[in-house]
Amino acid sequence: MTYIKEKGIALKNVENELSIATTKDKNLALKKVAESIEKNRKEILKANNKDVEIARKNNTNEALIDRLMLDNDRIDGIIEGINTVIKLQDPVWESNEVWTIENGLNISKMTTPIGVLGIVYESRPNVTVDAFSLALKSGNCIILRGSSSAINSNIELVRSIKEGLKNSNISEEAVQFIEDTNRDLVLDMLKASEYIDLIIPRGGKGLIQFVIENSTVPTLQTGEGNCHLFVDESAKLDNALDILVNAKTQRLGVCNACETLLVHEKIKEQFLPEVYKALKDKIELRGSLDIKEIINVNVAKEEDYQNEFLDAILAIKIVNDVDEAIEHINKYGTKHSESIITENLSNANKFQRKVDASTVYVNASTRFTDGSEFGFGAEMGISTQKIHARGPIGLKQLVTYKYLVMGEGQIRK
Amino acid sequence: MTYIKEKGIALKNVENELSIATTKDKNLALKKVAESIEKNRKEILKANNKDVEIARKNNTNEALIDRLMLDNDRIDGIIEGINTVIKLQDPVWESNEVWTIENGLNISKMTTPIGVLGIVYESRPNVTVDAFSLALKSGNCIILRGSSSAINSNIELVRSIKEGLKNSNISEEAVQFIEDTNRDLVLDMLKASEYIDLIIPRGGKGLIQFVIENSTVPTLQTGEGNCHLFVDESAKLDNALDILVNAKTQRLGVCNACETLLVHEKIKEQFLPEVYKALKDKIELRGSLDIKEIINVNVAKEEDYQNEFLDAILAIKIVNDVDEAIEHINKYGTKHSESIITENLSNANKFQRKVDASTVYVNASTRFTDGSEFGFGAEMGISTQKIHARGPIGLKQLVTYKYLVMGEGQIRK
Repeated sequence: MTYIKEKGIALKNVENELSIATTKDKNLALKKVAESIEKNRKEILKANNKDVEIARKNNTNEALIDRLMLDNDRIDGIIEGINTVIKLQDPVWESNEVWTIENGLNISKMTTPIGVLGIVYESRPNVTVDAFSLALKSGNCIILRGSSSAINSNIELVRSIKEGLKNSNISEEAVQFIEDTNRDLVLDMLKASEYIDLIIPRGGKGLIQFVIENSTVPTLQTGEGNCHLFVDESAKLDNALDILVNAKTQRLGVCNACETLLVHEKIKEQFLPEVYKALKDKIELRGSLDIKEIINVNVAKEEDYQNEFLDAILAIKIVNDVDEAIEHINKYGTKHSESIITENLSNANKFQRKVDASTVYVNASTRFTDGSEFGFGAEMGISTQKIHARGPIGLKQLVTYKYLVMGEGQIRK
Repeated sequence: MTYIKEKGIALKNVENELSIATTKDKNLALKKVAESIEKNRKEILKANNKDVEIARKNNTNEALIDRLMLDNDRIDGIIEGINTVIKLQDPVWESNEVWTIENGLNISKMTTPIGVLGIVYESRPNVTVDAFSLALKSGNCIILRGSSSAINSNIELVRSIKEGLKNSNISEEAVQFIEDTNRDLVLDMLKASEYIDLIIPRGGKGLIQFVIENSTVPTLQTGEGNCHLFVDESAKLDNALDILVNAKTQRLGVCNACETLLVHEKIKEQFLPEVYKALKDKIELRGSLDIKEIINVNVAKEEDYQNEFLDAILAIKIVNDVDEAIEHINKYGTKHSESIITENLSNANKFQRKVDASTVYVNASTRFTDGSEFGFGAEMGISTQKIHARGPIGLKQLVTYKYLVMGEGQIRK
């Protein structure tokens, strides 16, 4: 625990100052960090190259190597990300609830930083900078634990961040990075409720489950998206097909991609052949036996409805009505993003009210569940839990609040 | 786990219907429950009498017996509590954030129930009904685990609640009570993340710590209040004394009572004798040696600044300025309620910004941190954590939200 404790004490020492830092000082610090990353571009790419070489030696698959790899364009993207955060509105110390009670006490519910955020994440080194920028702009300190596969890149990126902060009015201690890749330290971090106020895991199902099961620090569960598209009897089928192709294929392997298609019984003969034609060359279709009678699919097992494929696979099921669709989604879904394609107002309404998910669409692609698309500017991930924040985690979701009460000597009777 | 699983399945079966119940149906159900408690008044008092007798046999102290005991007045209070909740505004399915993004998608952030709440609580049987009423009005199912000392009272109260629900349009399965007092079941409950969305512990420090350390279900930490009053150099001393007496003595043993008094160096000679005169007969004063030079106090140890006394004891400390007061509070406080008595605007401002607590007062008693006082009508406890809800947990804190997105065929580019 000593290792985490030392970092925790360093964070707690600057937490209070950062929590009241002005927007000007925070933006200046972000600008200096962006400049520092630009200046250290070569060193960052060199360190990243080392990580990629090690990954290749370990026979890491190409998809993972692609996630790990940085190049000049990606460094440009990281810097652009910081500039986006600079432009976002500061979420701290504002209120839309101010009221006065009978005895004259005036109460304001003001937003304040949470304090210290802990991020546990996998492979992509750009998360190091993204998470830091969002934390800083929202007045939060941050402790980062990246994956060992990106350790050289991350060390270099954090060094650049700290170098930037040295030229600003924000202490470089506001960001702490766990350089020791010993897995026990993750466990220490999850128990460090004295120093960390919120832990956000970003990565695969295994990582997220591990964090939730072991953390005594409050957590924000993110990421897993077993998303559905339900095509109702009254749907405009052209729209439905466009949306399906977009939600399934526009980007595979993202949490807001569609994994299961639910089709209303009465349109199966008409719609399924269209689905087959549009997707057969790029997507493996898995369906129940009644679907196999109409189009050529592989037979689906129950687990095909349970799992998030993150791959070129689509599960298909026929349902009798909107109620059965809702029931299926609430049983198998991960409370991420769900969509109904319909022209029936009453079904649209029922679907949006009864489906339990962060985002429920009518006649649109599930791919829009995203901080940038929603207009939040950037995000720390997408929450699939119901407590604190749901859906895209933008700056407004990284603050808490306190009540300020102004009196003139009031006592309780 | 079977016992909890069965109850969990029952709750999940009605969760969806309750989540969209109309305000009318929810209010009618609450009315029927109030009538049922009125009708079963005798049986409830009889069952409570049994609990009290057992407690007496076990040599339980009188303060605990007082918390456990019901009488006609307290039953009236329970019924009045339900009627208060009936009058409160339904917090479900409302929005103050609706916007449209570039491509015409319209996004509404709508409040929705959390789902299933779990409450683990000690002795006071009225919590059974209070927690149920707030859960129902906010569209949430609830599973209750009271203390074994109140088991007969709670069984009878839950029977009355269910009897009332039978005469309404809300399923009686929306409330589940753990009748088996085996402590292992609490642990099962804390691991039942498949069935429970949020667990709120209500009780002593030991219970709360146990829940936080063992729960994989998200929790709302409540209750512990080591609250401070800082009397600044510029304070109106009459006000300061009135507020101190109120915050310390108006009700001992509550979480928003003042436990430590911090006095500015420059007014110690003038203010401390006043404190002594006002409190010496009812409150034990504990202070550092420099205080003992001015008034007759017992010598304080460090733990006196750490602990929540919940008793007729006040710790006192002299500080050099507002900065030292803030530092002391952020070190020893429990993030509950803190107050500064001052006429200095800059110090008031600094105190409110830098003190890390749910509620920060200027020139008022800490005793106002309370759902009723704040105008929330009722509360499920007072949160001392920063995630999800902070301060009094009223109906608005018992909901989450989802994004409704209305489209006309939009796909992501």
